[in-house]
Amino acid sequence: MDLELALRMCEAAVKQAGREGAKIAVAVVDDGGHLVAFQRMDGAAIAGPVLAPGKAYTSVANRVPTAVLADLTKPGGELAGLPGDRFVCLGGGLPLWSDQGENGRVAGGVGVSGGTVAQDVSCAEAAALVWRTR
Amino acid sequence: MDLELALRMCEAAVKQAGREGAKIAVAVVDDGGHLVAFQRMDGAAIAGPVLAPGKAYTSVANRVPTAVLADLTKPGGELAGLPGDRFVCLGGGLPLWSDQGENGRVAGGVGVSGGTVAQDVSCAEAAALVWRTR
Amino acid sequence: MDLELALRMCEAAVKQAGREGAKIAVAVVDDGGHLVAFQRMDGAAIAGPVLAPGKAYTSVANRVPTAVLADLTKPGGELAGLPGDRFVCLGGGLPLWSDQGENGRVAGGVGVSGGTVAQDVSCAEAAALVWRTR
Amino acid sequence: MDLELALRMCEAAVKQAGREGAKIAVAVVDDGGHLVAFQRMDGAAIAGPVLAPGKAYTSVANRVPTAVLADLTKPGGELAGLPGDRFVCLGGGLPLWSDQGENGRVAGGVGVSGGTVAQDVSCAEAAALVWRTR
Repeated sequence: MDLELALRMCEAAVKQAGREGAKIAVAVVDDGGHLVAFQRMDGAAIAGPVLAPGKAYTSVANRVPTAVLADLTKPGGELAGLPGDRFVCLGGGLPLWSDQGENGRVAGGVGVSGGTVAQDVSCAEAAALVWRTR
Repeated sequence: MDLELALRMCEAAVKQAGREGAKIAVAVVDDGGHLVAFQRMDGAAIAGPVLAPGKAYTSVANRVPTAVLADLTKPGGELAGLPGDRFVCLGGGLPLWSDQGENGRVAGGVGVSGGTVAQDVSCAEAAALVWRTR
Repeated sequence: MDLELALRMCEAAVKQAGREGAKIAVAVVDDGGHLVAFQRMDGAAIAGPVLAPGKAYTSVANRVPTAVLADLTKPGGELAGLPGDRFVCLGGGLPLWSDQGENGRVAGGVGVSGGTVAQDVSCAEAAALVWRTR
Repeated sequence: MDLELALRMCEAAVKQAGREGAKIAVAVVDDGGHLVAFQRMDGAAIAGPVLAPGKAYTSVANRVPTAVLADLTKPGGELAGLPGDRFVCLGGGLPLWSDQGENGRVAGGVGVSGGTVAQDVSCAEAAALVWRTR
C-alpha cells in the first residue's frame, strides 16, 4: 500500500458515495491494519472516524470482507463472540489482496461508514476496484 | 447547543421522570458528542453517568435515535456488531436537529438512563421537545 | 450528595468563572466518584468533559485536593506513578467532607477544568463553599 | 472544517515534510476533535495513526499548540499529570481558530507525527498556513 494509491481509493469511494447520495467516511489501511489515508465527506457522521478505520482493520485482521463477519457473528454463528472494541463486524470493510486470487497476501484493507450497509459496501468496492486495477 | 438550553432540557427530562415515578440521569451533548450538561436524580443508579452520555453520544454519532439502533443491533440485525464501549445501542438517546426536518445538521443529542427503556425514551422526548421549541 | 445541592455547586463555580473571565466545565460527583451534575459554559473547551469529572473522581478516590496530588506526583514524589487514565492529578479537584474537620467521611467531590489551574482551583473552592455552608 | 480544505492542509504538511526529508503522518480534525482527513507518507512509522490524530484532538481539546503542553507537562510543570491515553502532549499539534486573533472559536486542529518534534511542528505550521489563508 502506498499513499498515492490510498488517496485514489479514497477518492473512488467518495465519488461512488456522491452517486448514491450517501455521506461517508473512508479509510485505507496497510497490511498491519494501520491507517494510511482517511477522508470524511462534509456532513458525514462523526461515527465515521471510529467505524471506517475499524472496518478496514477488521477486514485485514480476519482476511475477509466484514460483511462475511456480519454473518458469521450472528447468534449461533461460528464467530458470535468476535465483535467488540477491536473488531467492527459490519459490512463495508474489504481486504485488499496482493494477487487477484485469494492465494495472495493481504496487502491492506478499505473500510467505509456513513451510508446504509449496502451503500458502504458499494463505496468500499469502488475503492477496491482501484486497488485491483492498479 | 448552549448551557442555558441544555439545563432546561435536563430539567424537562427530570420533570418527566418525576411524573413517571422513574429515577433517571440525563445528558446533553454538543454536535461533537461532548457533554454540555448532566443531571442525575437522587436515588438514580450509578450506571447513569456511563449510559446517559453514551446514548447521547451514540445518537449524535449515528444520527438516529438509539431506539432505532436497538432494533438494528438485535441478533441477525444489520448492525448487530455495532454495540461496544463506544456505542450504547439502547433506547433513550435522541439526536437534536438544527432544523425541524431531518434534512438539517445534528446540533447535539440527549440521552437518558435509569428507568425502563420506555421511560427513558419518554424523558428524552421531553428534553427534545424543549430543543424543538427553543 | 443530592442533585439540588450539586446544581447549586455548579452554579457557584460557573459564577466564579464569570468573575475571573474563565470558561470552565464543572463536575460534582457522589461518594462513589460517580457524576451527579455537570455543566460546561458556552465556549469552554471540549477537554472539560474529560478533565472535570476526572478531577472530581480523583479527589474522592484519594481524599485530597488534586492540587496536592500535583505535588506528590512530581518526579521523585511519593505518588509519581499515579497519574494515568484514571487519576487526573492537576489542581481543580476537591473532596467534599461530611464534617467540617477532616475526620469526616468523603461525601463527594467537585472538579473544574477550562481555566488556568489557579482559576480552576478558585472555581472549585466557590463550589465547595456551597457544600460547607449547606 | 471541510474535506477539500483538510486535504489541502494534509498536502501542505506532506510537501513540507518532503522539503525537510521527514516521513510523517498528518491528521486534520473538526471542532469536536473528530478526524476529517489523514495521510501517512510511504515509509512513515505506524505510530502516526495514533499520534497525529491524538495531537490534533489534544490541540482542539485544550486550545493550545501541543508544544505548549509539552512544556507545561514537564516534570514539575503545572500540567504534569495531563498526558495519558487521551492527550498527546508533544509538539506537532495546532488548534485552528475561526478568526486570526485568538479571540475566535477553535474550528479544528492539525496534528503531525513521524519526524523530529521540530519537523512535526514545521509541517503542522505549513498546514495551518493553508487554514489561515483559506
